[in-house]
Amino acid sequence: MDHVLARLGRLLEERKQTPAESSYVAGLYRAGLDAILKKVGEEAAETLIAAKNGAQPAVVHEVADLWFHTLVMLSFMDLGPEAVLAELDRRFGRSGLEEKAARNRGVE
Amino acid sequence: MDHVLARLGRLLEERKQTPAESSYVAGLYRAGLDAILKKVGEEAAETLIAAKNGAQPAVVHEVADLWFHTLVMLSFMDLGPEAVLAELDRRFGRSGLEEKAARNRGVE
Amino acid sequence: MDHVLARLGRLLEERKQTPAESSYVAGLYRAGLDAILKKVGEEAAETLIAAKNGAQPAVVHEVADLWFHTLVMLSFMDLGPEAVLAELDRRFGRSGLEEKAARNRGVE
Amino acid sequence: MDHVLARLGRLLEERKQTPAESSYVAGLYRAGLDAILKKVGEEAAETLIAAKNGAQPAVVHEVADLWFHTLVMLSFMDLGPEAVLAELDRRFGRSGLEEKAARNRGVE
Repeated sequence: MDHVLARLGRLLEERKQTPAESSYVAGLYRAGLDAILKKVGEEAAETLIAAKNGAQPAVVHEVADLWFHTLVMLSFMDLGPEAVLAELDRRFGRSGLEEKAARNRGVE
Repeated sequence: MDHVLARLGRLLEERKQTPAESSYVAGLYRAGLDAILKKVGEEAAETLIAAKNGAQPAVVHEVADLWFHTLVMLSFMDLGPEAVLAELDRRFGRSGLEEKAARNRGVE
Repeated sequence: MDHVLARLGRLLEERKQTPAESSYVAGLYRAGLDAILKKVGEEAAETLIAAKNGAQPAVVHEVADLWFHTLVMLSFMDLGPEAVLAELDRRFGRSGLEEKAARNRGVE
Repeated sequence: MDHVLARLGRLLEERKQTPAESSYVAGLYRAGLDAILKKVGEEAAETLIAAKNGAQPAVVHEVADLWFHTLVMLSFMDLGPEAVLAELDRRFGRSGLEEKAARNRGVE
């Protein structure tokens, strides 16, 4: 199950090479960064609304939409999920969740 | 690398059981859903700003922040990354990225 | 020019009484609070994107969209622009902008 | 009451000329556009959360925060509330709310 993000990242890269095809993702790539970011903003708002509704299936659906559109954004910027997972691993991987998280937030 | 989300999900569940401790995540759990959702909204805005700046390292940092706080939100709602990854797998796993995505968006 | 918000608030109240008609606003009222909030979130994201593009006309357009949908939200919740303007007046009206603003932010 | 936005716009312009002073707004101007936009995004998220909580006073407070930070953003970009009010007037001023709104949304 855990390999979903990596596989999805590869799929998105492949589709970026074939922008002429008719598909939702190809349409997003052609529309450009602003259109992709607009979707990221929309899905974040829908995630908040679903969470306030306390509806577990809707929350799962909206977070999937949010993560998916951040993956499209990453691909558009020549990045992939690996970079984000490596950053999360760096923060939380070894010495535990709290110390690094606390330190990380403290410097913002 | 791909197991980061699953491990992080387990860590967050463990910390939810020990809310008394002093840590960033324990503080979020105590502050409650609204405080967690405020952070999700903040990180989404920072992701948009970083992407418009075209700064790859900042984008990776902000997406990590965004995904992390959605994981905290999922955990707070007794959900985990597996549910989101299963949903993404269901959409994109077998018959390819485009058909399911297009169909999925079409009904919104 | 300054009376625009008050007049718009009254118009929205009138339209709320006649939800059967076919119009964008009537459609929003029928769709309900979540649909209105989704639009507020969308327009906030588009405001950020337009501002990062440095495009003055687009910024004006998006802020108008954002304020408009917050007015629809206020009306849906039986509130109007007067309540928000009174709050801004309370904060900034007499003793100047900075003192009250600083105090106001400090307690958040 | 309706003149609040215009007066607030003038106050913000004055303060932009004296960035050295210590105040919340001066600090925002010095921090720059990204810091201001981050606040706009934050306040939009808090508006959604307050609205979902159905708490009228909190909604008024958050919309005031949201409008205030969009005014700071406008001022930072050498724009003022008048431009936004004129745009809203152009859309809704004469021939009524619905026709222009519907047409306006249709072309997006």
